[in-house]
Order: sequence, then structure tokens, then C-alpha cells
Amino acid sequence: MTPAPDLQDDSGIPTVGVLGGGQLARMLVLAGAPLGLRFKLLDPAPDACAGQLAPLTVGAYDAPDALRSFVEGIDVATFDFENVPAPAAEWLAATRSVFPPPRALAVSQDRLSEKSLFRELGIPVTAFAAVDTLDELHAAVATIGIPSILKTRRLGYDGKGQYRIRSAEDVQAAWSALGPQAPEVGLILEGFVPFQRELSIIAARDRSGEFCAWPLTRNWHVDGVLSASLAPARASAGIREKAMTYARTLAEALEYVGVFALELFEHDGELLANEMAPRVHNSGHWTIEGSHASQFENHLRAGLGLPLGSTAMRGQACMLNWLGAMPDRKTALAVPGLHWHDYGKRPRPGRKVGHATLCADSPAELAAKLERLGAALDRRAQVAPVVASLRDG
Amino acid sequence: MTPAPDLQDDSGIPTVGVLGGGQLARMLVLAGAPLGLRFKLLDPAPDACAGQLAPLTVGAYDAPDALRSFVEGIDVATFDFENVPAPAAEWLAATRSVFPPPRALAVSQDRLSEKSLFRELGIPVTAFAAVDTLDELHAAVATIGIPSILKTRRLGYDGKGQYRIRSAEDVQAAWSALGPQAPEVGLILEGFVPFQRELSIIAARDRSGEFCAWPLTRNWHVDGVLSASLAPARASAGIREKAMTYARTLAEALEYVGVFALELFEHDGELLANEMAPRVHNSGHWTIEGSHASQFENHLRAGLGLPLGSTAMRGQACMLNWLGAMPDRKTALAVPGLHWHDYGKRPRPGRKVGHATLCADSPAELAAKLERLGAALDRRAQVAPVVASLRDG
Repeated sequence: MTPAPDLQDDSGIPTVGVLGGGQLARMLVLAGAPLGLRFKLLDPAPDACAGQLAPLTVGAYDAPDALRSFVEGIDVATFDFENVPAPAAEWLAATRSVFPPPRALAVSQDRLSEKSLFRELGIPVTAFAAVDTLDELHAAVATIGIPSILKTRRLGYDGKGQYRIRSAEDVQAAWSALGPQAPEVGLILEGFVPFQRELSIIAARDRSGEFCAWPLTRNWHVDGVLSASLAPARASAGIREKAMTYARTLAEALEYVGVFALELFEHDGELLANEMAPRVHNSGHWTIEGSHASQFENHLRAGLGLPLGSTAMRGQACMLNWLGAMPDRKTALAVPGLHWHDYGKRPRPGRKVGHATLCADSPAELAAKLERLGAALDRRAQVAPVVASLRDG
Repeated sequence: MTPAPDLQDDSGIPTVGVLGGGQLARMLVLAGAPLGLRFKLLDPAPDACAGQLAPLTVGAYDAPDALRSFVEGIDVATFDFENVPAPAAEWLAATRSVFPPPRALAVSQDRLSEKSLFRELGIPVTAFAAVDTLDELHAAVATIGIPSILKTRRLGYDGKGQYRIRSAEDVQAAWSALGPQAPEVGLILEGFVPFQRELSIIAARDRSGEFCAWPLTRNWHVDGVLSASLAPARASAGIREKAMTYARTLAEALEYVGVFALELFEHDGELLANEMAPRVHNSGHWTIEGSHASQFENHLRAGLGLPLGSTAMRGQACMLNWLGAMPDRKTALAVPGLHWHDYGKRPRPGRKVGHATLCADSPAELAAKLERLGAALDRRAQVAPVVASLRDG
């Protein structure tokens, strides 16, 4: 990695290059502009939504011409997704200061290396085994047991590239579904975790090694895609401390710079690490209004050699994802303390097109507002589990 | 005024045109993007700082070609300054829905019509009289008394175009200084107000007549330019209620749409209205982090037919203006709860290049943070009056 740009002299306005121009890049731009930063984006899609706010180079992430045009005039580079082609990350790192470090991208791109690192660092994980052949799958099932999940090692996201094995009969079906991909992306069998709660910890580490994390977040997924996040998650001091320790250990091992998310399963008072995302994360969107410094701001601060901002909560916050199409804005905005985030994307089934964060001073107030919003938008099912958790005490 | 665009159908992304591309337009863009809005700007300066975030048409505000290019594709238009040339405002209003209404611009562009309206509405003002000749000036001084201030009626801002009359000998000097401008911009003599505190109320009214205001703000000026704002201002219930009533009365009289500021002088428990600004206002910048909905967001909500957002405070907030050049960002960002706003402008003596807002949970915490910031940046004089007011109890 080239050294950090010297940004102590404020006479120049640094330009940040972002590989990827989706909603994460868009929110980085919105957080970075007040810091005095300019941005350049690279994305294959001419209508990438962050391009509404910053100059966009249209091109493939591994196209030399596109990369050369993108890199011109940028002082530092980052990514809004983790599946950055390794050659592109290396090429960038050779000429510019990039964050997070390419090794973190590489680790997170492969479930096997990710889980192996977790285990090596003493971060508990479910049982897992690499699988290259049907015979290895049978052997792994014998060791790990049923239920378990066969997953692609690379390029899976939001529940895609997974097959759940509930009985011995499913082994052949799982292999038929994912086996053909084994030579290209690799497979891994993971023991099924009968978790009670899904949590995540969003953390940041800067170039000088300073570390910070936001309060633990509780998450609800629907069909493998995040539906709602609540912060702070109610958790014992022991759980909170474990999550913090795991995140810090991981950040230090990777000499991480920037923001990352560590997804955790909680069961019977224990935490198991599921995966890390080496970037700002959907379950951290609530930090924009729910904390003093957002994950987007601290990602930029970390990468630019600026002090990390306060991660203290400002009340209670719940983020709701909008998939496919935005709900009616006028109806939603009538709820006080609601913060709207329309990513400026065209509607498409299942697409993350926006989110809203509801803020309140107390869990009871947040529950009442969520119920009102859920009824007004006819999205009672989306808010119901969050309301129940707030009322469970 | 043409009818409000129908924005209840969220399938289209409305585009807001902003006449002016300075920091107010820039913060409108930053607040509007999450609402799903797009922007177009018109500004004579090719490097207008909002142009870093939205398409900018470069041209004079009254140049027909520039206006025609600017208006293409916009659904609604607003302004980031009040001295919009009347023909431009009228031309825009003939083809697009504009907010605030051109009448509010016209009233605020002329100190005489502004003060006359205040008086007509029962909003207390200092004594004033129109002055067109030296004889009229002598007559006005005889009626209003000394000390008093001779001001241009139009095109004055930030203390420019004013001459203070402290003794009879100053009358001739005041006329020599401003008399030559009388035929073009008109003059007004105002009684000097020996105020104890400068306050402002930032308020919004939407197309349906809904009204809201943020808690009263206390302001400190240096050489006629805002230096610091504190919210909430400590004020008696009576003062708070009067300010709210004046703002509401004014908004209703002007059938106002959008955000405006009313500047007030407080003396011996009474309020005198100084002037209104028919736009988002420097003394309302703290609302970005200090309140749920910022003045920028509510200005857009009001003009686009969306419900107004909550103006409730989130703790205590103090805004500090940065003039000329930005202070050292790295030093400032080390203070927890500090929010940085670099407008991306080139340094120039006296120019508003950015601001910072410090947030805290209590007045004592805010005072301590301000002292720390003032010492770190060597700007003790700027924070001192705010700290003193916080500690006075």
C-alpha cells in the first residue's frame, strides 16, 4: 500500500475514488461532501445511482482503460462492494492509497478463508469443511451433521448460492444445485446454526490503529435479505463485550483501515461469527441519524487520516429496507422522526431501492412509531418482529 | 403561481431547480438527495460550490438563454438568495411552480416594504423612515433621533450598505457615504436598537398552510457577519411565544411556502423584528444535526407538497461560521460530536467557506466542548460569548 495522502494541509480538496456506484457509494458521497471531499466513481452501469452526485466513469472494474480514466485525479480509493476483481484491487493499490487493504477483500471473498481466519483468531464459528467433490460432500455431511448448508465459497450474497440440507436425501440435490459451480467458485459445507438472534457489529479502524465500534445492532432477514435493523440491540454486557473483542481482533489481524461489519448469530448466550463485510454495511445505515458519526463518515475519516468520529447513540433507531419499489413517501414522511433514503434507483423486483430510519427517544416511543408506520404503509409484517422485540423488555 | 407538482406518485423523480449555486444550494442538494430529488442549478460562477453535486448552468440570473436552459426538465424552482432579479422570478413563476412566492422575495428585497409589512402585521419594529434626499435625512434624524442607522433599502447584506449616525456631525458623512446610491437602491433611516441579544426564528410553511418553527436561536455577529449560533436560545415562554406568533403571522400574510428566517432583537424582555430572509438561513444550519428535520429538508418538503418534518431539538447545538479559510480539519474533528461542513469553496478574505456544528446532551457539556474546540483551533474569541451564555445559567 502506498502511504496515506497527507491531508493535514487543507489547501487542497482531496478526491476519493470509489469502485462501485451504488447506494453505498451514494451515501459515501453524501457523508464526504461536508468533510470537503470530492469523489469519482467507476461502475459498469451508466445509471449507477451515485452518479447523480459525482462524476461517473462507466466501465468494467477490470477494464484497463476504465481504470486508468477512473484513477486520474484521485488521491485515495475505496470500494462499495467486496467482490472487487483481485487484479483491479492490486493495480489500484500499486498506484494509489486504497482502503480497506486488498487482503481484507480477498479474505472476505472466500467463505473458506474467512471462516478459517475467524477460527485461527479464536472467533467462534460453526463447523465447516471445504467441498470439491460429491464424495467430499458426503464426508463433510458425515462429520458436520444434518442440518447443514452447502454454499459457494465465492460470489454468494443475500442468501444466493446456498442449499440447505435437511435430510440425507438432500445431499444429492444440493450437489446437483451447486456442484456444477464447484470448479469455478468452490464450495463449503457449514453446520446449520439454530440461532435465536441475528446481530451485527459495525466497526472502524483508522490508519494509526485507532478502533471504534457502534453499539450492537439486531437484524431481521426475509428470504436471506436484510429487512430491518434495530440499535442498540438489547444484549448482556458479556455479549456486547464479546462482539467488540471479535471485531477488534479481526480488525487488527487484517491491519484493517475503514469500516467493516461482522455478522453474528446469538444462541444460548453465545456468539458465532457468520461473515464479515469489508465495507459500510446495510445493517449500519441507521448510524446516519442514530449516531453522531455515521459509518459512511467514519469510513472516510479512517481512510483519509482524520480522527474517527463519535459512535455514541442518539436515542433509539430502527432501519427498514425498501425492496423492489419505494413505499409512498408522503405517507411515510408524516411520521415524526422518520428519515427517508431514496437511492434514486429504478424499481425492480427485489432490488434495494431505499431505506428509512425511524428515531425515537425510548424503546416504547420507537415501537409506537413503528406500528404507526407499518399500518400507514401496510407493512405490518416488516415492523412486527421489531415492535415485539422492543416490547419484550 | 402554477399548481404544485403532483408528487404523490413516486414513480417519477422530481427535479428541483435552484437559482444560485452557493453553500445554501449545496446543502439543499445534500438534504434533497435522500428524499429522492434531483437538482439543477443556475449560477453565474462556473465554480459555484453546489455544482460539485448537481448539474450547473452557468449564466446570469436574468439572461434569457441561461434561464431557458436552466428551466428545462425542472419540475419546481427555488432560490438560494433573496436578491433574485424580479423579471427572472416572474418568468420562472409563469412556467414553473416556484417557492417561496415572488412576493416574499420582493418584500424582503426592500427594507422599507419589509418594515412597513412588519408594522402593518403588528410585529414590533424600530422607528424608520424612507430617505431620498439630504433634507429628508435631516428630517428623519429629527424624528427618529440619534443614534440611528442609514441603510440602503435594497441589495445590502452582512452589514454592507450601512452607516451609523452617532452624532449630528455624522449626518453629512452618512449622506456622503450612501447618498449617491439613493436614486438606484433607495435609503432608509432606522432607529438604533440597543439590543441585549440577537435572536432568530427559523420557520416553515407548506402549501397546505401547515406551519412549524424550530426552537429559538441566539446569534452572535462580528462586523455584521454571523459568527456563532446557539440553539435552543434560553428565553422565557413569553419571548418564545412572541417569536412564534410573529413568524406565523408573517408566513400567513405572505402565503409563504418554504423555510424563512426572522431576525429579532431582544431588549428588556421585548422583541423587535430586524429583517426576514425568505430562504434557508445561516442561523439555521445547526438544524442539520441538532433537529430531526433540517431547515434544508423542510424547505424542500414544504415546496414539494410533502409533510413537514419534526423540528424537535436533539440535544444542544452550536454552529460556528468559518470565514476566509477553513480551520484545521484534523484538529477540529478530534472533538466528539463535532460536525464539519466544508463548502468546497476557495479561500478568500471574509468569504463564508464552511461551518461546524457541535452537539451535546447538556449546556454544560456543550460549553466544555466549545472551550476545547476554541483552544485547539486558537479561536477562543469566537467561542467565548457562547460559552459565557451557556454558563450564565
